[in-house]
Amino acid sequence: MFQFWGRLHRTLAGSEGMENPGYCSGSFDGLHHPSDDDDDEMVDIAGATLDFSTTDDVPPLSSGGFEEYTTTTGSSSSSSSRAAGMNGTGPSKLVDPLEDPLPGLGTYEDFNTIDWVREKSKDRDRHREITNKSRQSTVALLHSVSDAFSGWLLMLLVGLMAGALAGGIDIAAHWLTDMKGGVCLIGFWFNHEHCCWTSNETTFQERDRCPQWQSWAELITGTSEGPFAYIVNYLMYIFWALLFAFLAVTLVRAFAPYACGSGIPEIKTILSGFIIRGYLGKWTLIIKTITLVLAVSSGLSLGKEGPLVHVACCCANILCHLFTKYRKNEAKRREVLSAAAAVGVSVAFGAPIGGVLFSLEEVSYYFPLKTLWRSFFAALVAAFTLRSINPFGNSRLVLFYVEFHAPWHLVELAPFILLGIFGGLWGALFIRANIAWCRKRKSTILGHYPVIEVLVVAALTALLAYPNSYTRMSGAELISELFNDCSLLDSSQLCGYKQPTNTSETGAGNSLADRPAGEGLYTALWQLALALVFKMMITVITFGMKVPSGLFIPSMAVGAIAGRLLGVGMEQLAYYNHDWFIFKGWCSPGADCITPGLYAMVGAAACLGGVTRMTVSLVVIMFELTGGLEYIVPLMAATMTSKWVADAFGREGIYEAHIRLNGYPFLEPKEEFEHSSLAVDVMRPRRADPALAVLTQEGMTVGEVETLVESTHYSGFPVVVSQESQRLVGFVLRRDLLISIDNARKRQEGVVSASQVVFTEHAPAQAPDAPPPLRLRGIMDLSPFTVTDHTPMDITVDIFRKLGLRQCLVTHNGRLLGIITKKDILKHMAQIANRDPDSILFN
Amino acid sequence: MFQFWGRLHRTLAGSEGMENPGYCSGSFDGLHHPSDDDDDEMVDIAGATLDFSTTDDVPPLSSGGFEEYTTTTGSSSSSSSRAAGMNGTGPSKLVDPLEDPLPGLGTYEDFNTIDWVREKSKDRDRHREITNKSRQSTVALLHSVSDAFSGWLLMLLVGLMAGALAGGIDIAAHWLTDMKGGVCLIGFWFNHEHCCWTSNETTFQERDRCPQWQSWAELITGTSEGPFAYIVNYLMYIFWALLFAFLAVTLVRAFAPYACGSGIPEIKTILSGFIIRGYLGKWTLIIKTITLVLAVSSGLSLGKEGPLVHVACCCANILCHLFTKYRKNEAKRREVLSAAAAVGVSVAFGAPIGGVLFSLEEVSYYFPLKTLWRSFFAALVAAFTLRSINPFGNSRLVLFYVEFHAPWHLVELAPFILLGIFGGLWGALFIRANIAWCRKRKSTILGHYPVIEVLVVAALTALLAYPNSYTRMSGAELISELFNDCSLLDSSQLCGYKQPTNTSETGAGNSLADRPAGEGLYTALWQLALALVFKMMITVITFGMKVPSGLFIPSMAVGAIAGRLLGVGMEQLAYYNHDWFIFKGWCSPGADCITPGLYAMVGAAACLGGVTRMTVSLVVIMFELTGGLEYIVPLMAATMTSKWVADAFGREGIYEAHIRLNGYPFLEPKEEFEHSSLAVDVMRPRRADPALAVLTQEGMTVGEVETLVESTHYSGFPVVVSQESQRLVGFVLRRDLLISIDNARKRQEGVVSASQVVFTEHAPAQAPDAPPPLRLRGIMDLSPFTVTDHTPMDITVDIFRKLGLRQCLVTHNGRLLGIITKKDILKHMAQIANRDPDSILFN
Repeated sequence: MFQFWGRLHRTLAGSEGMENPGYCSGSFDGLHHPSDDDDDEMVDIAGATLDFSTTDDVPPLSSGGFEEYTTTTGSSSSSSSRAAGMNGTGPSKLVDPLEDPLPGLGTYEDFNTIDWVREKSKDRDRHREITNKSRQSTVALLHSVSDAFSGWLLMLLVGLMAGALAGGIDIAAHWLTDMKGGVCLIGFWFNHEHCCWTSNETTFQERDRCPQWQSWAELITGTSEGPFAYIVNYLMYIFWALLFAFLAVTLVRAFAPYACGSGIPEIKTILSGFIIRGYLGKWTLIIKTITLVLAVSSGLSLGKEGPLVHVACCCANILCHLFTKYRKNEAKRREVLSAAAAVGVSVAFGAPIGGVLFSLEEVSYYFPLKTLWRSFFAALVAAFTLRSINPFGNSRLVLFYVEFHAPWHLVELAPFILLGIFGGLWGALFIRANIAWCRKRKSTILGHYPVIEVLVVAALTALLAYPNSYTRMSGAELISELFNDCSLLDSSQLCGYKQPTNTSETGAGNSLADRPAGEGLYTALWQLALALVFKMMITVITFGMKVPSGLFIPSMAVGAIAGRLLGVGMEQLAYYNHDWFIFKGWCSPGADCITPGLYAMVGAAACLGGVTRMTVSLVVIMFELTGGLEYIVPLMAATMTSKWVADAFGREGIYEAHIRLNGYPFLEPKEEFEHSSLAVDVMRPRRADPALAVLTQEGMTVGEVETLVESTHYSGFPVVVSQESQRLVGFVLRRDLLISIDNARKRQEGVVSASQVVFTEHAPAQAPDAPPPLRLRGIMDLSPFTVTDHTPMDITVDIFRKLGLRQCLVTHNGRLLGIITKKDILKHMAQIANRDPDSILFN
Repeated sequence: MFQFWGRLHRTLAGSEGMENPGYCSGSFDGLHHPSDDDDDEMVDIAGATLDFSTTDDVPPLSSGGFEEYTTTTGSSSSSSSRAAGMNGTGPSKLVDPLEDPLPGLGTYEDFNTIDWVREKSKDRDRHREITNKSRQSTVALLHSVSDAFSGWLLMLLVGLMAGALAGGIDIAAHWLTDMKGGVCLIGFWFNHEHCCWTSNETTFQERDRCPQWQSWAELITGTSEGPFAYIVNYLMYIFWALLFAFLAVTLVRAFAPYACGSGIPEIKTILSGFIIRGYLGKWTLIIKTITLVLAVSSGLSLGKEGPLVHVACCCANILCHLFTKYRKNEAKRREVLSAAAAVGVSVAFGAPIGGVLFSLEEVSYYFPLKTLWRSFFAALVAAFTLRSINPFGNSRLVLFYVEFHAPWHLVELAPFILLGIFGGLWGALFIRANIAWCRKRKSTILGHYPVIEVLVVAALTALLAYPNSYTRMSGAELISELFNDCSLLDSSQLCGYKQPTNTSETGAGNSLADRPAGEGLYTALWQLALALVFKMMITVITFGMKVPSGLFIPSMAVGAIAGRLLGVGMEQLAYYNHDWFIFKGWCSPGADCITPGLYAMVGAAACLGGVTRMTVSLVVIMFELTGGLEYIVPLMAATMTSKWVADAFGREGIYEAHIRLNGYPFLEPKEEFEHSSLAVDVMRPRRADPALAVLTQEGMTVGEVETLVESTHYSGFPVVVSQESQRLVGFVLRRDLLISIDNARKRQEGVVSASQVVFTEHAPAQAPDAPPPLRLRGIMDLSPFTVTDHTPMDITVDIFRKLGLRQCLVTHNGRLLGIITKKDILKHMAQIANRDPDSILFN
């Protein structure tokens, strides 16, 4: 009979499991399970479950030493006390042979999905217990108070730690980036700016050329001019870029494979309830922090914003270990991680409110109001910490502070919307190209040589980037320069306008008045156009490599360049044609009517929006980033256009696309399920399959149960009244069943293979010579979720999403018919979308 | 048998119904059902259900004229096509005798709760149908595109309409407020400021005294000085206040009783799925708009912010009628209303982002990401419209624009937290006092004389407010003045500092440096202290009266006064003791170290936070309101403290308290259900009660069904396989059942009382001479929600909240045991909290 169950087995047993995680476009096949002592944070509950983490098939029991478990009884007391309490008359009725609940009950294995309902219920039980106790003694009352405030304390710590780390990363990356150009003679640990600060000889104008700071050419050849010096500098630039890139990829490969990529797709998946052990562990944190600095410094076309979210989540996950409440509850921990995502963006951009909205709009799955408040608090603490460290030396939270004075005119909405269209097109194109490239990397030989790939791309980037000053500077510097408005005194090439020869002609006194473009500006425009093409190309192959890499800064750079180009174009158009009717009335000669910096800002928002499909959070981030509260409407117009245009080519943002590429079991909360299937079409077993493997509430022996469990791989079994009636009683998890039987055999007298397994409240009458029954009502979930076979799948999917279910039983007229797991739903969706349902989930 | 069902009946029949809505602390007993032609917006679906709106008990069928119904078949086609589609093999299998679905199927009666799952499923069906059709023809494709963009178009219209209305309200209120002081000779329709603009003779300094603007004393007695003139002005002030108040309360009483109060508690309830017909109708809109202007102008201690949210929601609801998609679907309409709440705050404060967050944090129940985007769009459009109307004449969106230059110091966090504590205490106290007062109004004779009450309060307010210049001015003006920082030139009393005699002593050139308080300031402080006490008292009795009244401005005024007092205190302390160690290093003499305006801002946030328990949205509103992006940390510290302190005295904000006072069936999404009850403890029937009234899927005759339905008042009946097995098949709504049977008797041949009612797919074998059976599978919900009897109530409550259920069936081992409705849950919660479960729900 069992031979037919192969198909069903795969569905249920590995119901949420997978053998081959696809992180970073999955090709570290040898590195899937970082050793337990390295990365043990995600499911390591009180140290008791380490032994269960290695395999999926072998019953997860260590063969000896129950005594060492009994010391960690807290681990699941709440879950089994709830189960016990379910009898309606309290735990006294349940004659569970074990006083102490078993360790490991109610925990999860790696690459499994948590049961949100159970976790939240566990937490409420715990809370209720503490509240009840708090009325009895002062100590318990204090415990209750400290428990209530532990969430806020944890948030404070997360904010402080993430803020401090971000500050450190900023400082180190700044230093290493400057190292590519030269070195400070009074101390190699000074960056360019800092080196010249300590010098007294430099004026403000010449701060780039202080004697203490020497370029490599100066140091090696003694001269900073001439083609030879240029070549030396060029080569040194490439050398450092390659060195940093090599270090970064090697460290990632050797110590923490999970540290690569931006981390946001995986964090989204984890927040939706999936478990990837070690993804947020201490090794990942350490290695990601170090390699992020190296990767950013190497000049690759990547940003540090996405990885900072990952870093903040690692901090939060590690700090959760300090508090029992969060260490032991996967759902509560995910609330903290949601807040940590907000912290990450908050420190990346100095945008606390934008960070909270980013977490809400883009990353989080379950975001109750309490988490909103705490996220905001943590984001503020982090931003405040970062400001105290003051890595940018300007004591501002704001990264690209701009101060535009000119209001925008309604006519300008047209170019802004044009930028939105550009951003949307580029976003859609980028996602397609990047996914195609990553798929190629996964499927061809390319994926076997990640180190060489990184080195080649780094070399290519350095080679092409150095000659163009706009690609040579870091992404953040470039954006900052493009956002800035030109004043008369500005010496940058971008401000190479012709000086007004006659003040009366151009409206004296207005130093920001529109001016005709000069030689310098034309050169700058050419360079910018080249930089645009280069950035667009190189970012596609960079994102997804085996180094930490964020997308925010490269996307924004592309948009800012495009925006600035359009802005300058508009400015010149208005300058030479201010009598056109569209410019009439608001753009008189000598007025400052077009602000190219604003166009750059709008373009940056549009491109970032096209890639990530963020809207509200993006606008908020942009104005927190620039301080420009007055420009909400242009920003909003561009981001909404960008989203609409990009959505027309495919509804997935880059993160969702990577989640699908890697086959993570993620149920997108944004998209509606739009097909008319019914639960009966999706559930297992299918019509042709044999019946579902069920336990009966009485009548089965321990031996029979063990045979059933061992011959299948399902992660749980429904319990029914009898094989004939198929009326549902409850649901037992495989893991809990195995642990309980194994323990009973060891500790409980008289439990042998012939003992009856009983799930009822009262033991049935037995022959007097029969062995004592094994009562397992305590581990049974008495409230499994059920839907009828006629339930439309759109409602079922909604239930899965909103309640965070792992599985749901299907009934027809009160009889158990089948089961639907999250994976079944995902497979069904893939099938509908004409994708191979088996190829997408981890293999 | 039926005689025992009394108790059960009340539970189920009026399961979500009520006879006596408690709006505005319910005392308009005679006015509960505004005539259908006046306020018909909430459930008026395609005009077809008007006839069903009058009573709860009579079967909601108009006795004649089926033909006029058949023209409106679109009304429920989607719902029954879904029901039909549930057979798994499409509608062909279901031999429904009626080609056209019946009108009225799938609609709701007044004071009932909608079924979110069904509504959303209906919308998905509709969308699916349009999508499928769009592949067939170009017209259908265009229809599909217009359908997709109708949501955005609706948002645009809502934004435009609400923005325009808000602008009108601002202008009118400004004019009428000034009318209390005097009149413009060149045209009575000019307000004070406008009147003096047109004059050429006034200088900037003397803009308050232009010859065109005459106070009432000048006009009547010819002089503006002396005690007699003062008395005349005083009397005229009281006269106008009484007139406006009288007009406001009379208009509300006569035309739209729903227009009173702030409206936010009711909107929260409506958004959670409750139906209050006419609450968002056109009469409510018109009357609320007019009376809001009158109430604000009368000088009562109330604001226009809450009512503006109501006005915006009315606009949205009325505009929904233009789009079938929103007119016919209660769930979709609520998405629009959520966005409208954001629009309301956006126009009230010029804070689009704060508005969206307010809707998310405070008002909304179901807020998907799509609604987030649309809310943001609508809020922007509205803010933009308002800016174009430019009611404040300063072309700013920002209401209380402040430009502080001094950074705040870490030490100042202590007074900020102190303000938070004050805000929290005041919030808690205010809620208790206001609820006690409203309860008294409800239960004593006071409630029978709303007009007299309003007149007495208005007279009292005017009498006490006039002598004190800080209470005489409007709340918004007061806040604006308190937020402002003093410069050297400022002539206001609040800036009555001693002028520096010696510039070298106080740090020349810094016009904002701290200075010692002078005579004027001391007078101002006294007046402010009196104003604080007055505002605190009068607001308690004002909020809840029968006029439109918001709480934001009065709460902020209280906080701003307290904050300013503390700020000036700190400033003087620092000025005289700048050698204290806490001031050392950052507050040297002559520096501008303390900004009293910032303290006022923080105090305003703290008090508003204490009353409403908003946090994130409040901070965002505050900085959008003032433009002070740098002061997030002080604002956040104060609002969080305020929330914690106020929560310690009771977790309800003012809106939740009013919802509970009025007994609305609102399941608070913020609070956790913290008790260990099980579903079996809450469900009906209770142990002592007779069994549940059920239908069987076959075997019952039409006559039996009619008897059962008529002898009970349940709003729905479970359908089971047979009375013996009690295995659940589906759920039928009373309303649908009655409509179908009635219709079949009229239109279908051979359906008599002896006809069998059949819910199965295939009709059972019958005697050849039996009348043809009535097939009703089409109206049965084949996927009713079930939980087991052992499901803990915390999980059940979670399911109700997240899925928006109306009712849920309870099973035990596959047999139907009972039913839980939303009202059962609310009653259970009231019981646990030791409140009378019967008193809280509408009586």
